[in-house]
Amino acid sequence: MFEPHNQPPETTADGVHLVFQRGELVSDLRAREPLLPHAQLKADNWVEIRRQFLGFWHGEPLWAVEIDEQIELDPMRYQRGNLYTLLGRVDEPLFALAGRAAQLLAWERDHQYCGSCGNPMQVDVGERAMRCGPCRSVIYPRIAPCIIVLVTRGEELLLARGANFPRPMYSTLAGFIEAGESAEETLVREVKEEVGVNVDRIEYFKSQSWPFPNQLMLGYFAEYAGGDIVCEPTEILDAQWFHYSDLPQIPPPSSISGQLIRHYIGSLQRG
Amino acid sequence: MFEPHNQPPETTADGVHLVFQRGELVSDLRAREPLLPHAQLKADNWVEIRRQFLGFWHGEPLWAVEIDEQIELDPMRYQRGNLYTLLGRVDEPLFALAGRAAQLLAWERDHQYCGSCGNPMQVDVGERAMRCGPCRSVIYPRIAPCIIVLVTRGEELLLARGANFPRPMYSTLAGFIEAGESAEETLVREVKEEVGVNVDRIEYFKSQSWPFPNQLMLGYFAEYAGGDIVCEPTEILDAQWFHYSDLPQIPPPSSISGQLIRHYIGSLQRG
Repeated sequence: MFEPHNQPPETTADGVHLVFQRGELVSDLRAREPLLPHAQLKADNWVEIRRQFLGFWHGEPLWAVEIDEQIELDPMRYQRGNLYTLLGRVDEPLFALAGRAAQLLAWERDHQYCGSCGNPMQVDVGERAMRCGPCRSVIYPRIAPCIIVLVTRGEELLLARGANFPRPMYSTLAGFIEAGESAEETLVREVKEEVGVNVDRIEYFKSQSWPFPNQLMLGYFAEYAGGDIVCEPTEILDAQWFHYSDLPQIPPPSSISGQLIRHYIGSLQRG
Repeated sequence: MFEPHNQPPETTADGVHLVFQRGELVSDLRAREPLLPHAQLKADNWVEIRRQFLGFWHGEPLWAVEIDEQIELDPMRYQRGNLYTLLGRVDEPLFALAGRAAQLLAWERDHQYCGSCGNPMQVDVGERAMRCGPCRSVIYPRIAPCIIVLVTRGEELLLARGANFPRPMYSTLAGFIEAGESAEETLVREVKEEVGVNVDRIEYFKSQSWPFPNQLMLGYFAEYAGGDIVCEPTEILDAQWFHYSDLPQIPPPSSISGQLIRHYIGSLQRG
Protein backbone atom coordinates (compact mmCIF):
# COMPACT_ATOMS: atom_id res chain seq x y z
CA MET A 1 0.00 0.00 0.00
CA PHE A 2 3.01 2.34 0.47
CA GLU A 3 5.60 2.66 -2.26
CA PRO A 4 8.55 4.85 -1.21
CA HIS A 5 9.81 7.30 -3.82
CA ASN A 6 12.26 10.21 -3.73
CA GLN A 7 11.27 12.07 -6.87
CA PRO A 8 8.30 14.38 -6.20
CA PRO A 9 5.53 14.81 -8.80
CA GLU A 10 5.46 18.14 -10.63
CA THR A 11 2.36 19.40 -8.91
CA THR A 12 1.64 19.58 -5.20
CA ALA A 13 -2.06 20.12 -5.92
CA ASP A 14 -3.27 16.66 -4.99
CA GLY A 15 -2.42 13.69 -2.83
CA VAL A 16 -2.58 13.08 0.90
CA HIS A 17 -0.62 14.70 3.69
CA LEU A 18 0.85 13.98 7.09
CA VAL A 19 0.84 17.40 8.72
CA PHE A 20 3.12 18.35 11.60
CA GLN A 21 3.12 21.43 13.81
CA ARG A 22 5.66 22.04 16.60
CA GLY A 23 6.98 18.51 15.98
CA GLU A 24 3.58 16.90 16.60
CA LEU A 25 1.26 15.17 14.16
CA VAL A 26 -2.03 16.92 13.35
CA SER A 27 -5.07 14.60 13.11
CA ASP A 28 -8.54 15.35 11.90
CA LEU A 29 -10.87 14.42 14.77
CA ARG A 30 -13.56 13.07 12.42
CA ALA A 31 -11.21 10.93 10.34
CA ARG A 32 -9.84 7.71 11.76
CA GLU A 33 -6.44 8.30 10.13
CA PRO A 34 -4.05 11.24 10.30
CA LEU A 35 -3.90 11.47 6.49
CA LEU A 36 -5.36 14.76 5.27
CA PRO A 37 -6.46 15.21 1.63
CA HIS A 38 -5.25 18.10 -0.52
CA ALA A 39 -8.66 19.82 -0.58
CA GLN A 40 -8.64 20.02 3.20
CA LEU A 41 -5.18 21.62 3.34
CA LYS A 42 -6.27 24.10 0.71
CA ALA A 43 -9.48 24.96 2.54
CA ASP A 44 -7.61 25.52 5.80
CA ASN A 45 -5.08 27.74 4.02
CA TRP A 46 -2.25 26.82 6.41
CA VAL A 47 1.14 28.47 5.97
CA GLU A 48 3.65 25.74 5.14
CA ILE A 49 7.23 25.86 6.43
CA ARG A 50 8.50 22.82 4.53
CA ARG A 51 7.28 19.85 2.57
CA GLN A 52 8.88 16.48 1.75
CA PHE A 53 7.59 13.95 -0.76
CA LEU A 54 7.46 10.44 0.72
CA GLY A 55 6.16 8.28 -2.14
CA PHE A 56 2.77 6.83 -2.99
CA TRP A 57 0.08 5.69 -0.59
CA HIS A 58 -2.48 3.49 -2.36
CA GLY A 59 -1.33 5.15 -5.58
CA GLU A 60 -1.73 8.73 -4.35
CA PRO A 61 1.22 11.09 -3.78
CA LEU A 62 1.98 11.29 -0.06
CA TRP A 63 3.59 14.37 1.46
CA ALA A 64 4.96 15.29 4.86
CA VAL A 65 4.12 18.93 5.58
CA GLU A 66 5.23 21.16 8.42
CA ILE A 67 3.01 24.15 9.11
CA ASP A 68 3.80 27.41 10.87
CA GLU A 69 3.86 27.06 14.63
CA GLN A 70 1.77 30.22 15.07
CA ILE A 71 -1.29 28.81 13.30
CA GLU A 72 -4.23 28.30 15.66
CA LEU A 73 -5.80 24.92 14.97
CA ASP A 74 -9.56 24.63 15.40
CA PRO A 75 -9.85 22.48 18.56
CA MET A 76 -13.25 21.14 17.43
CA ARG A 77 -11.72 19.85 14.21
CA TYR A 78 -8.09 18.94 14.91
CA GLN A 79 -5.89 17.48 17.57
CA ARG A 80 -2.12 17.52 17.71
CA GLY A 81 -0.24 14.61 19.25
CA ASN A 82 3.21 13.24 19.93
CA LEU A 83 4.02 10.34 17.60
CA TYR A 84 4.37 8.14 20.65
CA THR A 85 0.64 8.39 21.32
CA LEU A 86 -0.01 6.91 17.86
CA LEU A 87 1.96 3.74 18.63
CA GLY A 88 -0.34 0.74 18.81
CA ARG A 89 -3.38 2.91 17.94
CA VAL A 90 -2.88 2.86 14.17
CA ASP A 91 -1.68 0.06 11.87
CA GLU A 92 2.06 -0.55 11.87
CA PRO A 93 2.54 0.60 8.23
CA LEU A 94 0.83 3.90 8.97
CA PHE A 95 2.84 4.37 12.15
CA ALA A 96 6.05 3.71 10.20
CA LEU A 97 4.97 6.30 7.62
CA ALA A 98 4.28 8.92 10.26
CA GLY A 99 7.71 8.17 11.71
CA ARG A 100 9.31 8.53 8.30
CA ALA A 101 7.51 11.84 7.74
CA ALA A 102 8.59 13.24 11.12
CA GLN A 103 12.20 12.21 10.54
CA LEU A 104 12.47 13.76 7.09
CA LEU A 105 10.99 17.08 8.21
CA ALA A 106 13.29 17.20 11.23
CA TRP A 107 16.26 16.29 9.06
CA GLU A 108 15.56 19.17 6.64
CA ARG A 109 15.02 21.58 9.55
CA ASP A 110 18.28 20.52 11.22
CA HIS A 111 20.38 20.90 8.05
CA GLN A 112 19.58 24.42 6.91
CA TYR A 113 23.29 25.26 7.15
CA CYS A 114 26.37 23.33 6.07
CA GLY A 115 28.28 21.84 9.01
CA SER A 116 31.59 22.09 7.15
CA CYS A 117 31.50 25.70 5.97
CA GLY A 118 28.42 27.33 7.53
CA ASN A 119 26.74 28.37 4.25
CA PRO A 120 23.01 27.75 3.63
CA MET A 121 22.20 24.33 2.16
CA GLN A 122 19.66 23.59 -0.58
CA VAL A 123 17.22 20.71 -0.91
CA ASP A 124 18.37 18.48 -3.77
CA VAL A 125 15.81 17.90 -6.52
CA GLY A 126 17.15 14.53 -7.72
CA GLU A 127 17.70 12.55 -4.54
CA ARG A 128 16.81 12.78 -0.86
CA ALA A 129 19.74 15.01 0.11
CA MET A 130 20.71 18.51 1.24
CA ARG A 131 23.55 20.10 -0.72
CA CYS A 132 26.01 22.92 -0.06
CA GLY A 133 26.92 24.86 -3.21
CA PRO A 134 30.19 26.46 -1.97
CA CYS A 135 31.86 23.36 -0.43
CA ARG A 136 29.86 20.61 -2.21
CA SER A 137 28.97 18.81 1.01
CA VAL A 138 26.03 16.41 0.69
CA ILE A 139 23.94 15.33 3.67
CA TYR A 140 21.55 12.37 3.66
CA PRO A 141 18.85 11.69 6.26
CA ARG A 142 20.41 10.48 9.44
CA ILE A 143 19.51 7.22 11.18
CA ALA A 144 21.02 6.27 14.54
CA PRO A 145 21.48 2.50 14.83
CA CYS A 146 20.94 1.06 18.33
CA ILE A 147 21.07 -2.40 19.80
CA ILE A 148 18.28 -3.63 22.05
CA VAL A 149 18.82 -6.89 23.88
CA LEU A 150 16.96 -9.32 26.09
CA VAL A 151 19.47 -10.98 28.42
CA THR A 152 18.24 -14.35 29.64
CA ARG A 153 19.29 -17.03 32.15
CA GLY A 154 17.10 -20.03 31.53
CA GLU A 155 13.62 -19.13 32.75
CA GLU A 156 14.75 -15.73 34.02
CA LEU A 157 14.82 -12.44 32.11
CA LEU A 158 17.06 -9.50 32.97
CA LEU A 159 14.88 -6.39 32.80
CA ALA A 160 15.72 -2.85 33.82
CA ARG A 161 13.93 0.34 34.68
CA GLY A 162 15.58 3.18 32.77
CA ALA A 163 16.02 6.60 34.35
CA ASN A 164 14.16 8.21 31.43
CA PHE A 165 11.16 5.84 31.31
CA PRO A 166 7.89 7.77 31.41
CA ARG A 167 6.22 4.96 33.42
CA PRO A 168 7.34 2.54 36.16
CA MET A 169 8.05 -0.18 33.61
CA TYR A 170 10.85 -2.73 33.19
CA SER A 171 12.31 -3.31 29.78
CA THR A 172 15.22 -4.76 27.80
CA LEU A 173 18.59 -2.99 27.61
CA ALA A 174 19.48 -0.70 24.71
CA GLY A 175 22.28 1.55 23.53
CA PHE A 176 23.64 3.46 20.57
CA ILE A 177 26.22 1.89 18.29
CA GLU A 178 29.43 3.92 18.25
CA ALA A 179 31.75 4.63 15.33
CA GLY A 180 34.05 1.67 14.72
CA GLU A 181 31.87 -0.87 16.56
CA SER A 182 29.91 -3.82 15.25
CA ALA A 183 26.41 -4.25 16.68
CA GLU A 184 27.60 -7.32 18.59
CA GLU A 185 30.46 -5.34 20.18
CA THR A 186 28.04 -2.60 21.21
CA LEU A 187 25.75 -5.20 22.79
CA VAL A 188 28.51 -6.69 24.96
CA ARG A 189 29.78 -3.23 25.95
CA GLU A 190 26.35 -1.77 26.76
CA VAL A 191 25.20 -4.72 28.89
CA LYS A 192 28.47 -4.56 30.83
CA GLU A 193 28.26 -0.78 31.27
CA GLU A 194 24.57 -0.61 32.22
CA VAL A 195 24.15 -3.62 34.51
CA GLY A 196 27.65 -5.08 34.98
CA VAL A 197 27.05 -8.58 33.60
CA ASN A 198 28.76 -10.51 30.81
CA VAL A 199 26.84 -12.14 27.97
CA ASP A 200 27.47 -14.55 25.14
CA ARG A 201 25.50 -16.64 22.59
CA ILE A 202 24.13 -13.54 20.88
CA GLU A 203 21.19 -14.27 18.59
CA TYR A 204 19.54 -11.78 16.25
CA PHE A 205 15.77 -11.32 16.43
CA LYS A 206 14.67 -8.55 14.02
CA SER A 207 14.93 -4.82 13.48
CA GLN A 208 12.45 -1.95 13.82
CA SER A 209 12.45 1.68 12.78
CA TRP A 210 11.87 3.74 15.91
CA PRO A 211 11.20 7.42 15.17
CA PHE A 212 11.93 8.83 18.67
CA PRO A 213 13.58 10.66 17.00
CA ASN A 214 15.47 8.58 14.42
CA GLN A 215 16.66 5.20 15.69
CA LEU A 216 16.98 1.88 13.93
CA MET A 217 16.57 -0.71 16.69
CA LEU A 218 18.45 -3.98 16.13
CA GLY A 219 16.94 -6.58 18.45
CA TYR A 220 18.93 -9.48 19.91
CA PHE A 221 18.77 -12.18 22.55
CA ALA A 222 21.87 -12.90 24.62
CA GLU A 223 22.61 -15.41 27.36
CA TYR A 224 23.99 -14.53 30.77
CA ALA A 225 27.65 -15.51 31.10
CA GLY A 226 28.69 -14.20 34.52
CA GLY A 227 28.81 -11.25 36.91
CA ASP A 228 26.42 -9.69 39.42
CA ILE A 229 23.97 -6.95 38.56
CA VAL A 230 25.47 -3.52 39.26
CA CYS A 231 23.42 -0.68 37.79
CA GLU A 232 24.96 2.35 36.12
CA PRO A 233 23.15 4.95 38.29
CA THR A 234 22.65 7.76 35.76
CA GLU A 235 20.90 5.48 33.26
CA ILE A 236 19.39 2.58 35.20
CA LEU A 237 17.21 3.00 38.29
CA ASP A 238 16.88 -0.72 38.91
CA ALA A 239 17.58 -4.01 37.16
CA GLN A 240 16.53 -7.49 38.27
CA TRP A 241 16.18 -11.07 37.17
CA PHE A 242 12.48 -11.86 36.74
CA HIS A 243 11.01 -15.32 36.34
CA TYR A 244 8.93 -15.41 33.17
CA SER A 245 5.82 -16.32 35.14
CA ASP A 246 6.14 -13.29 37.42
CA LEU A 247 6.98 -10.22 35.33
CA PRO A 248 6.59 -6.53 36.23
CA GLN A 249 4.90 -4.11 33.84
CA ILE A 250 6.62 -4.55 30.46
CA PRO A 251 6.50 -2.60 27.17
CA PRO A 252 3.59 -3.15 24.74
CA PRO A 253 3.90 -5.60 21.83
CA SER A 254 4.08 -2.68 19.40
CA SER A 255 7.69 -2.06 20.51
CA ILE A 256 10.56 -4.40 19.73
CA SER A 257 11.35 -4.69 23.46
CA GLY A 258 7.82 -5.98 24.07
CA GLN A 259 8.21 -8.40 21.18
CA LEU A 260 11.57 -9.71 22.43
CA ILE A 261 10.10 -10.48 25.84
CA ARG A 262 6.94 -12.14 24.48
CA HIS A 263 8.90 -14.13 21.89
CA TYR A 264 11.25 -15.52 24.53
CA ILE A 265 8.41 -16.45 26.88
CA GLY A 266 6.68 -18.18 23.96
CA SER A 267 9.80 -20.24 23.25
CA LEU A 268 10.01 -21.25 26.96
CA GLN A 269 6.35 -22.26 27.03
CA ARG A 270 6.74 -24.35 23.90
CA GLY A 271 9.65 -26.03 25.70
CA MET B 1 43.47 -4.67 24.33
CA PHE B 2 41.32 -1.65 23.35
CA GLU B 3 39.03 -0.07 25.92
CA PRO B 4 36.84 2.68 24.42
CA HIS B 5 36.44 5.81 26.51
CA ASN B 6 34.97 9.27 25.84
CA GLN B 7 36.57 11.25 28.64
CA PRO B 8 40.08 12.40 27.67
CA PRO B 9 42.90 12.41 30.24
CA GLU B 10 44.04 15.82 31.49
CA THR B 11 47.33 15.78 29.64
CA THR B 12 47.97 15.05 25.99
CA ALA B 13 51.68 14.56 26.72
CA ASP B 14 51.76 10.78 26.45
CA GLY B 15 49.99 7.89 24.78
CA VAL B 16 49.88 6.62 21.24
CA HIS B 17 48.41 8.24 18.14
CA LEU B 18 46.73 7.42 14.88
CA VAL B 19 47.72 10.36 12.69
CA PHE B 20 45.77 11.45 9.62
CA GLN B 21 46.65 13.94 6.93
CA ARG B 22 44.35 14.80 3.99
CA GLY B 23 42.05 12.01 5.15
CA GLU B 24 44.79 9.36 4.94
CA LEU B 25 46.53 7.46 7.70
CA VAL B 26 50.21 8.23 8.30
CA SER B 27 52.40 5.18 9.03
CA ASP B 28 55.98 5.04 10.17
CA LEU B 29 57.81 2.94 7.57
CA ARG B 30 60.00 1.28 10.19
CA ALA B 31 57.18 0.35 12.55
CA ARG B 32 54.86 -2.52 11.73
CA GLU B 33 51.85 -0.64 13.10
CA PRO B 34 50.48 2.82 12.34
CA LEU B 35 50.50 3.76 16.04
CA LEU B 36 52.92 6.60 16.71
CA PRO B 37 54.18 7.33 20.26
CA HIS B 38 53.96 10.78 21.82
CA ALA B 39 57.72 11.33 21.68
CA GLN B 40 57.69 10.90 17.93
CA LEU B 41 54.86 13.41 17.41
CA LYS B 42 56.71 15.84 19.62
CA ALA B 43 59.99 15.38 17.73
CA ASP B 44 58.28 15.91 14.40
CA ASN B 45 56.61 19.06 15.69
CA TRP B 46 53.57 18.64 13.43
CA VAL B 47 50.86 21.31 13.45
CA GLU B 48 47.64 19.67 14.68
CA ILE B 49 44.25 20.65 13.27
CA ARG B 50 42.17 18.52 15.63
CA ARG B 51 42.46 15.70 18.11
CA GLN B 52 39.97 13.15 19.45
CA PHE B 53 40.48 10.83 22.40
CA LEU B 54 39.50 7.24 21.57
CA GLY B 55 40.18 5.33 24.80
CA PHE B 56 43.00 3.10 25.99
CA TRP B 57 45.15 0.78 23.89
CA HIS B 58 46.95 -1.75 26.10
CA GLY B 59 46.44 0.72 28.95
CA GLU B 60 47.89 3.73 27.12
CA PRO B 61 45.78 6.74 26.07
CA LEU B 62 45.00 6.51 22.35
CA TRP B 63 44.38 9.63 20.27
CA ALA B 64 43.26 10.33 16.73
CA VAL B 65 45.15 13.34 15.41
CA GLU B 66 44.69 15.28 12.19
CA ILE B 67 47.71 17.30 11.07
CA ASP B 68 47.88 20.27 8.75
CA GLU B 69 47.63 19.29 5.09
CA GLN B 70 50.58 21.55 4.18
CA ILE B 71 53.11 19.60 6.26
CA GLU B 72 55.70 17.80 4.11
CA LEU B 73 56.19 14.28 5.41
CA ASP B 74 59.68 12.80 5.16
CA PRO B 75 59.21 10.15 2.43
CA MET B 76 62.06 8.05 3.85
CA ARG B 77 60.28 7.87 7.17
CA TYR B 78 56.53 7.99 6.57
CA GLN B 79 53.94 6.84 4.14
CA ARG B 80 50.36 8.00 3.88
CA GLY B 81 47.65 5.58 2.83
CA ASN B 82 43.95 5.23 2.29
CA LEU B 83 42.34 3.17 5.06
CA TYR B 84 41.28 0.67 2.42
CA THR B 85 44.90 -0.34 1.86
CA LEU B 86 45.12 -1.30 5.53
CA LEU B 87 42.28 -3.84 5.27
CA GLY B 88 43.57 -7.36 5.66
CA ARG B 89 47.14 -6.09 6.26
CA VAL B 90 46.73 -5.33 9.97
CA ASP B 91 44.80 -7.18 12.67
CA GLU B 92 41.06 -6.63 12.67
CA PRO B 93 41.02 -4.77 16.05
CA LEU B 94 43.64 -2.32 14.79
CA PHE B 95 41.79 -1.83 11.51
CA ALA B 96 38.59 -1.14 13.45
CA LEU B 97 40.46 1.40 15.57
CA ALA B 98 41.86 3.20 12.55
CA GLY B 99 38.33 3.30 11.14
CA ARG B 100 36.99 4.71 14.39
CA ALA B 101 39.72 7.37 14.43
CA ALA B 102 39.05 8.40 10.82
CA GLN B 103 35.29 8.63 11.45
CA LEU B 104 35.61 10.78 14.58
CA LEU B 105 38.00 13.24 12.95
CA ALA B 106 35.78 13.53 9.87
CA TRP B 107 32.71 13.99 12.07
CA GLU B 108 34.32 16.88 13.98
CA ARG B 109 35.49 18.46 10.71
CA ASP B 110 32.03 18.16 9.13
CA HIS B 111 30.23 19.72 12.12
CA GLN B 112 32.08 22.98 12.65
CA TYR B 113 28.80 24.85 12.15
CA CYS B 114 25.32 24.17 13.47
CA GLY B 115 22.98 22.84 10.78
CA SER B 116 19.95 24.41 12.49
CA CYS B 117 21.17 27.97 13.02
CA GLY B 118 24.57 28.27 11.29
CA ASN B 119 26.56 29.31 14.36
CA PRO B 120 29.95 27.69 15.18
CA MET B 121 29.72 24.51 17.26
CA GLN B 122 31.96 23.51 20.16
CA VAL B 123 33.42 20.12 21.07
CA ASP B 124 31.72 18.89 24.24
CA VAL B 125 34.04 18.05 27.10
CA GLY B 126 31.77 15.53 28.84
CA GLU B 127 30.57 13.29 26.05
CA ARG B 128 31.39 12.59 22.41
CA ALA B 129 29.26 15.40 20.99
CA MET B 130 29.37 18.78 19.25
CA ARG B 131 27.21 21.49 20.81
CA CYS B 132 25.72 24.75 19.61
CA GLY B 133 25.54 27.42 22.31
CA PRO B 134 22.87 29.69 20.75
CA CYS B 135 20.31 27.03 19.73
CA ARG B 136 21.42 24.17 21.99
CA SER B 137 21.62 21.62 19.17
CA VAL B 138 23.69 18.53 19.99
CA ILE B 139 25.26 16.35 17.31
CA TYR B 140 26.63 12.86 17.91
CA PRO B 141 28.92 10.94 15.55
CA ARG B 142 26.96 9.72 12.59
CA ILE B 143 26.80 6.09 11.47
CA ALA B 144 24.99 5.07 8.29
CA PRO B 145 23.39 1.62 8.67
CA CYS B 146 23.37 -0.50 5.49
CA ILE B 147 22.16 -3.96 4.64
CA ILE B 148 24.38 -6.35 2.73
CA VAL B 149 22.82 -9.55 1.49
CA LEU B 150 23.81 -12.80 -0.20
CA VAL B 151 20.85 -14.01 -2.28
CA THR B 152 20.96 -17.76 -2.86
CA ARG B 153 19.08 -20.40 -4.88
CA GLY B 154 20.27 -23.77 -3.71
CA GLU B 155 23.85 -24.19 -4.94
CA GLU B 156 23.77 -20.89 -6.82
CA LEU B 157 24.72 -17.44 -5.52
CA LEU B 158 23.47 -14.16 -6.95
CA LEU B 159 26.50 -11.88 -7.27
CA ALA B 160 26.75 -8.50 -8.92
CA ARG B 161 29.41 -6.21 -10.28
CA GLY B 162 28.76 -2.72 -8.94
CA ALA B 163 29.32 0.32 -11.12
CA ASN B 164 31.68 1.79 -8.50
CA PHE B 165 33.82 -1.31 -7.86
CA PRO B 166 37.52 -0.54 -8.24
CA ARG B 167 38.20 -4.02 -9.67
CA PRO B 168 36.31 -6.46 -11.95
CA MET B 169 34.88 -8.33 -8.98
CA TYR B 170 31.44 -9.76 -8.18
CA SER B 171 29.96 -9.25 -4.74
CA THR B 172 26.80 -9.37 -2.63
CA LEU B 173 24.13 -6.63 -2.87
CA ALA B 174 24.06 -3.71 -0.44
CA GLY B 175 22.11 -0.54 0.25
CA PHE B 176 21.48 2.19 2.79
CA ILE B 177 18.60 1.90 5.23
CA GLU B 178 16.17 4.81 4.83
CA ALA B 179 14.26 6.68 7.52
CA GLY B 180 11.18 4.71 8.58
CA GLU B 181 12.43 1.34 7.26
CA SER B 182 13.43 -1.79 9.13
CA ALA B 183 16.61 -3.50 7.89
CA GLU B 184 14.48 -6.35 6.52
CA GLU B 185 12.31 -3.91 4.54
CA THR B 186 15.42 -2.26 3.09
CA LEU B 187 16.76 -5.66 2.07
CA VAL B 188 13.63 -6.62 0.12
CA ARG B 189 13.44 -3.18 -1.51
CA GLU B 190 17.13 -2.99 -2.48
CA VAL B 191 17.29 -6.47 -4.02
CA LYS B 192 14.17 -5.69 -6.06
CA GLU B 193 15.53 -2.29 -7.14
CA GLU B 194 19.05 -3.42 -8.00
CA VAL B 195 18.48 -6.78 -9.70
CA GLY B 196 14.70 -7.16 -10.01
CA VAL B 197 14.24 -10.36 -8.02
CA ASN B 198 12.09 -11.16 -4.98
CA VAL B 199 13.49 -12.76 -1.84
CA ASP B 200 12.23 -14.32 1.37
CA ARG B 201 13.56 -16.44 4.28
CA ILE B 202 15.83 -13.65 5.46
CA GLU B 203 18.48 -14.82 7.92
CA TYR B 204 20.88 -12.58 9.84
CA PHE B 205 24.60 -13.32 9.68
CA LYS B 206 26.55 -10.65 11.59
CA SER B 207 27.46 -6.96 11.45
CA GLN B 208 30.67 -5.11 10.68
CA SER B 209 31.80 -1.52 11.07
CA TRP B 210 32.90 -0.32 7.65
CA PRO B 211 34.68 3.03 7.76
CA PHE B 212 34.34 3.98 4.06
CA PRO B 213 33.35 6.47 5.30
CA ASN B 214 30.98 5.56 8.16
CA GLN B 215 28.80 2.54 7.48
CA LEU B 216 27.53 -0.17 9.78
CA MET B 217 27.05 -3.20 7.53
CA LEU B 218 24.28 -5.59 8.60
CA GLY B 219 24.87 -8.90 6.82
CA TYR B 220 22.04 -11.27 5.85
CA PHE B 221 21.31 -14.30 3.73
CA ALA B 222 18.08 -14.41 1.74
CA GLU B 223 16.55 -17.01 -0.54
CA TYR B 224 15.40 -16.36 -4.09
CA ALA B 225 11.60 -16.23 -4.35
CA GLY B 226 10.92 -15.29 -7.98
CA GLY B 227 11.64 -12.91 -10.85
CA ASP B 228 14.32 -12.64 -13.54
CA ILE B 229 17.53 -10.66 -13.11
CA VAL B 230 17.12 -7.11 -14.44
CA CYS B 231 19.98 -4.82 -13.43
CA GLU B 232 19.45 -1.22 -12.36
CA PRO B 233 21.93 0.25 -14.90
CA THR B 234 23.34 3.18 -12.91
CA GLU B 235 24.37 0.96 -9.97
CA ILE B 236 24.87 -2.56 -11.33
CA LEU B 237 27.00 -3.36 -14.40
CA ASP B 238 26.16 -7.05 -14.34
CA ALA B 239 24.53 -9.63 -12.06
CA GLN B 240 24.44 -13.39 -12.50
CA TRP B 241 23.71 -16.66 -10.77
CA PHE B 242 27.02 -18.43 -10.10
CA HIS B 243 27.39 -22.06 -9.06
CA TYR B 244 29.43 -22.20 -5.85
CA SER B 245 32.07 -24.37 -7.57
CA ASP B 246 32.64 -21.83 -10.34
CA LEU B 247 32.80 -18.34 -8.86
CA PRO B 248 34.27 -15.17 -10.38
CA GLN B 249 36.66 -12.98 -8.40
CA ILE B 250 34.97 -12.27 -5.04
CA PRO B 251 35.77 -9.89 -2.14
CA PRO B 252 38.44 -10.87 0.41
CA PRO B 253 37.48 -12.55 3.71
CA SER B 254 38.27 -9.33 5.58
CA SER B 255 34.99 -7.86 4.28
CA ILE B 256 31.57 -9.05 5.37
CA SER B 257 30.64 -9.72 1.72
CA GLY B 258 33.59 -12.12 1.44
CA GLN B 259 32.54 -13.75 4.72
CA LEU B 260 28.91 -14.17 3.63
CA ILE B 261 29.99 -15.94 0.44
CA ARG B 262 32.54 -18.21 2.16
CA HIS B 263 30.16 -19.03 5.00
CA TYR B 264 27.40 -20.08 2.59
CA ILE B 265 29.78 -22.23 0.52
CA GLY B 266 30.99 -23.87 3.75
CA SER B 267 27.41 -24.73 4.70
CA LEU B 268 26.79 -26.26 1.24
CA GLN B 269 29.97 -28.33 1.43
CA ARG B 270 29.07 -29.65 4.88
CA GLY B 271 25.71 -30.65 3.34
